This record gives sequence, C-alpha cells and structure tokens, in this order.
Amino acid sequence: MGVGLALDLRHGCVDINMGAGGLASERLLQELFLPAFDNVALQSLGDGAVVPMPPGRLVVATDAHVVSPIFFPGGDIGGLSVHGTVNDVAMMGARPLYLSASFILEEGFPLADLKRVVDSMAAACHEAGVSIVTGDTKVVEKGGADGVFITTTGVGMVEESVGIAPDRARPGDRVIVSGPIGEHGAAVLAQRRELGLETALTSDTQPLHGLVAAMLESGVELRCLRDPTRGGVASALNELARASGVGIALDEESIPVGGEVRGVCELLGLDPLYVACEGRLLAICPADGVERLLQNMRAHPKGEGAAIIGEVVEDRDRLLVLHAPWGGSRIVPMLTGEPLPRIC
Amino acid sequence: MGVGLALDLRHGCVDINMGAGGLASERLLQELFLPAFDNVALQSLGDGAVVPMPPGRLVVATDAHVVSPIFFPGGDIGGLSVHGTVNDVAMMGARPLYLSASFILEEGFPLADLKRVVDSMAAACHEAGVSIVTGDTKVVEKGGADGVFITTTGVGMVEESVGIAPDRARPGDRVIVSGPIGEHGAAVLAQRRELGLETALTSDTQPLHGLVAAMLESGVELRCLRDPTRGGVASALNELARASGVGIALDEESIPVGGEVRGVCELLGLDPLYVACEGRLLAICPADGVERLLQNMRAHPKGEGAAIIGEVVEDRDRLLVLHAPWGGSRIVPMLTGEPLPRIC
Repeated sequence: MGVGLALDLRHGCVDINMGAGGLASERLLQELFLPAFDNVALQSLGDGAVVPMPPGRLVVATDAHVVSPIFFPGGDIGGLSVHGTVNDVAMMGARPLYLSASFILEEGFPLADLKRVVDSMAAACHEAGVSIVTGDTKVVEKGGADGVFITTTGVGMVEESVGIAPDRARPGDRVIVSGPIGEHGAAVLAQRRELGLETALTSDTQPLHGLVAAMLESGVELRCLRDPTRGGVASALNELARASGVGIALDEESIPVGGEVRGVCELLGLDPLYVACEGRLLAICPADGVERLLQNMRAHPKGEGAAIIGEVVEDRDRLLVLHAPWGGSRIVPMLTGEPLPRIC
Repeated sequence: MGVGLALDLRHGCVDINMGAGGLASERLLQELFLPAFDNVALQSLGDGAVVPMPPGRLVVATDAHVVSPIFFPGGDIGGLSVHGTVNDVAMMGARPLYLSASFILEEGFPLADLKRVVDSMAAACHEAGVSIVTGDTKVVEKGGADGVFITTTGVGMVEESVGIAPDRARPGDRVIVSGPIGEHGAAVLAQRRELGLETALTSDTQPLHGLVAAMLESGVELRCLRDPTRGGVASALNELARASGVGIALDEESIPVGGEVRGVCELLGLDPLYVACEGRLLAICPADGVERLLQNMRAHPKGEGAAIIGEVVEDRDRLLVLHAPWGGSRIVPMLTGEPLPRIC
C-alpha cells in the first residue's frame, strides 16, 4: 500500500502494516474507524477514553464475536457485536453507555467488507444510544485468523434499586420470552455455504435495552433477565435454575417458534430450544406481576411477541423440564453435544 | 471429551464444544477460569458484572493481544494482556480497577498452555490490584485462529484534578522515558523460531500503574503520558507531537538502549526507536518540574532507569527530530515500513 494515497475502501485489502502501530494503522483509524464512530472521547486518541458517568453501580460486559459467515440474512458481525454487548449490559438491568471495540483482522481481508462491518456497528450504536469510545486493531498474517473477529466491551450504569441476578428465581415465579426463538442461529446456519438452504429467515439480532427499560418502568419486580444466545433458551434457563436452586417447568405449546426455524431445525436435526437468539430475552418475575409485565412488553416494538412459557418450581435437582401438550414431559439438559460453532 | 469427567488440564485440548455455551463451556469456566480469576463479581455468572465505583471520571481502554509466540522470555500473552490494558488505563492518569477478558481459542489448543496463560493473567492482576470481573470465550475450528487471542478491556477512575492528554505538550516541556527501550519487541523477535537467536533478553512487560501513581504524587504537572508499545518510542512521540501541534527534539545519546537490544536490532536491521516496549512509559512535563519528577520516578522500582531524552520545541511541521552526539540530526517519522507483526 502506498502510504501517500488514501485507503482504497472499494478494492483495497487489510495490510499487515495496518496493525503495526505506525502510519498505516493511523490511516485505518482516521479514514475508516473515526468517521464511522464519530465522538469526542474517541477523537482524543489517547490510550483510552475518559468519559463522564452518572451515579449508580457500574456494569461491565464483554463478548467476542467470531460468527461465520460474517454477513448473514438480517445482519452481520458488526451490528451483532454491538447488540450482543448492549444486550448483556441491559440484562443486568443497566443502561448501556459506552463500548470499546477491538478488531483482529486477517491480512488480505477486503477493506470494503471492513467498511460495511464498521458502518453496521455505527448504525447499531446509534440505535442503541451508545458510543464506541476506544478501540484497538491488530492484524495477523493470512491464515492466522478468519477474516475479522470483534470483541466489544460495554459499560453501563444500573440504579441502586434494581436487583436483577441469576440466583433470584423463586418457586411460583413465571418465565417470559420476549418473542419467537432460534431465529439468529437458524438464519446463520441456513446461510452457511455447505448447507445452501433457501429460506426467508432473518436473524433476530437487535438491541434490547429499550425493552428492558420499558420492563423496569412497569414497576413489576424483575428477578432474572437473560438473553438466550449461544446454547439457546435451554442453556440460559438451565443456568438460571442452577444459580437459583430451583426447577423450571416449560410449557412446550406456549413457546413461540416460527415455521421457518422449525423447518431448518428439523432438516439439521436440531432442537430450537438450543438455537441462539440475538434479539430475545428471558425474564423471570413473580406471578402476581406477570400480566402487567407482559402488557408492557407487548406494547414495546421489540417485545410484541412476548409470551409466558413456564413456571419456576421447587426442585432439588434444579432441572428444566418441558411439558408437552399431550401430557408427556422430558428433561432438557444443558447443551452437551451438537455444538453450533461460530454462531455469534 | 467425555462430559462426565473433569477437564484434563495436563494433556487435554480445547474442544469446539467449549465455545458452544453448553456444559463444556461451563466446565472450562468452572474448572479453569473461575479458580484463577477468583472474585465475587465474576462468580455471580451474570451476563456481565456489577461493580462499585469510586467518584471521579471513568476511563475505558481496550487491547487485543495476538503476540506470537505466546510464550516469550520474560512473559506470555496472558500477563501481557493484563499489563497492556492496565498500562493504557494508567496512561490516562487513572487507577485501574476492573478488567474484562475475552478469549478466542483455536480448537486443539492445549489446555495446559491455556492454564499457564490464565494463571499468568491471574498473577498479573494480583500484582496490578485489578480483578477480571467478566469475560467471554469463543472457540473456532482448527486453522480459524492461531492458538489464543485475548482482548482485555480495563475500567479505571481518574481524579478530576488530573488533566493528562495527548494535546497538552508545550514548547519548553521535557520528555522522559522510564527505562531502557525496545526490550519487549526485541525479546519476542529473538524468540521466533525462524530466527532462533540466543540472547539473554527478556521482555520488559510489567504494570506501570504504581509508577504513574508515584509520578502523580510528585505534584509535578503531567502533560502527556504514553506507553510506547507497537511502533515504539518513535510512533508514540510522533503522535503526541501531532496532537499537541509541536515538534520534539530527541537527544540520541540520552536514550537508554541496552546492549542486547542494540545487538538484535542491528542483526535484524531495525531501529530501536520503533521497537515495542510493554513496561515503559513516556512522560512530558514542564521544564521546571522535571528534576523532581525524575527523582520520584527513579525512587520507584519500575522507574529506576528513567531519563530525560528530549525537549518539546516549536515546529509547525510537528516533527520528531533525533539529534546525534556529533551534531548531526535526522527526522524520525511515524513507522511506515518494516512492520513487526504480532509483537503484542
């Protein structure tokens, strides 16, 4: 790459120089990252960012993103890397404020793809009301990584009155999901070249901080919140059951699963309960507030499909049990086999 | 991997299941990460961590680490990933408090190596007085990444009175380096298999927050602080000169460079000014405080080799100029060619 020329964002590729901390690194920053992530803290170009914080307790969450393919129906690794971390912060009942972003790039990765990813991150930040205030970029030689990996870390603030935690579910509580499950995982799997399935499926990737804010405003006590990403609803609920020392009884018929997701899962021999969502949340709340909470959720555009899917029960073995409409039931364990690698 | 057995931390390898969010992921967390990074926030196993913050302004810094080889004389990718981010936070004049850690692992990576890396991170955290409060682990298929990549993000607090920023250097200010330069980069390069150099060189990787605290206690106004990592002293000072709209005149004779570093650099045709440090800092302060600051730095174990290496000058072209002892001088530009990939 000639250092005297502007970056060729249409036909150029990532160059090993761009990770070396010199002029090429700076140009990537100045010509690609800064225009997209425009904000005062980032532009100060310090080793980090200094940012103001409202009073409260601090929440920190981090997510590495290695999804393959990086572009999939309904999204890409860029937007996903913002949503993933914004949602993790939101699941603590916090308002997301700032993100850091670290990129690991493979030499030869097309700059046009990088620009598309970065623009998607910027749009996702805009929607979520957060800023990328600091970042880092490393480049590894061709074959040393696969295209682009992005780690985002989110910082947010949670009010003292909010007491959401994975160990707070109690027998009698109700379990809510905010919408149809498995759409992200099914869309990514269907997109993989080796499968080449033709479906109208799109990922559900979206930020959930606004939905969480609406839920907090309902005044109903939120005991647990979790976004069922890797491992799906089954793994997330198993984790909550274990942490709280309770069982969870799921009503199979009331779990929203779209027809396309069912189709992809049947074809691939997967259970939708284990397939990742990136724009849904699970909430556990006391029974007496559940209808009010559901009403608030359904009034929010990201919670229109919310449904009560189960109940917390006493169970020393802390099992997740799925009850079928015809009266049968089966234990739904943590994901053990059938891994779905690089789904997020 | 049989899911009923404990992880084989001596002979086992990273398995694609360990990134899938199910039982294998959880066991990696329970048997490897949690025992090493033992702290209350991490053990709550939420999607993120809730942590208390003292009053002040928040500092956020992030670093991706892709160093190769991952074990090098004087350190490894684990300790380095803690030092790198702790130091970035410290360079803002802040006290580092919390870290997040995200791991991207290649399938087949030996668990014994991962344990060594994680233990090194834990030791580095202990020394730096920080906790890893949240994290994430992804696994990619063999060939999709190179062993292990670690992104750490640090959060710290900076007092209102501290006004360190890259644009605050003024003509007449003095430039200090905290010790001999280039040792990290030279040690890593010498270790690379293709070179196989035999040297007694060790990386300078170390946390600098304590040294920064001692410098702040001196009462001398700190205008700029920067750790000269990728791109070395030359790139860091060029960045400060540009941001401040000044020139910097370096006195070649006063720049501390060890004999081993000189030797490796001569052999590889490198200029030590461009070789990364991971345990040194550059400081710019007003001339009238420089002796007091130097005294405070030298009294600290991590600043014993501190030296004044130059002066900030008026220069519209914002150049870094190296003055040789015999009276010659040359412009030292930002790093343009000769990249040293995967040095950190």
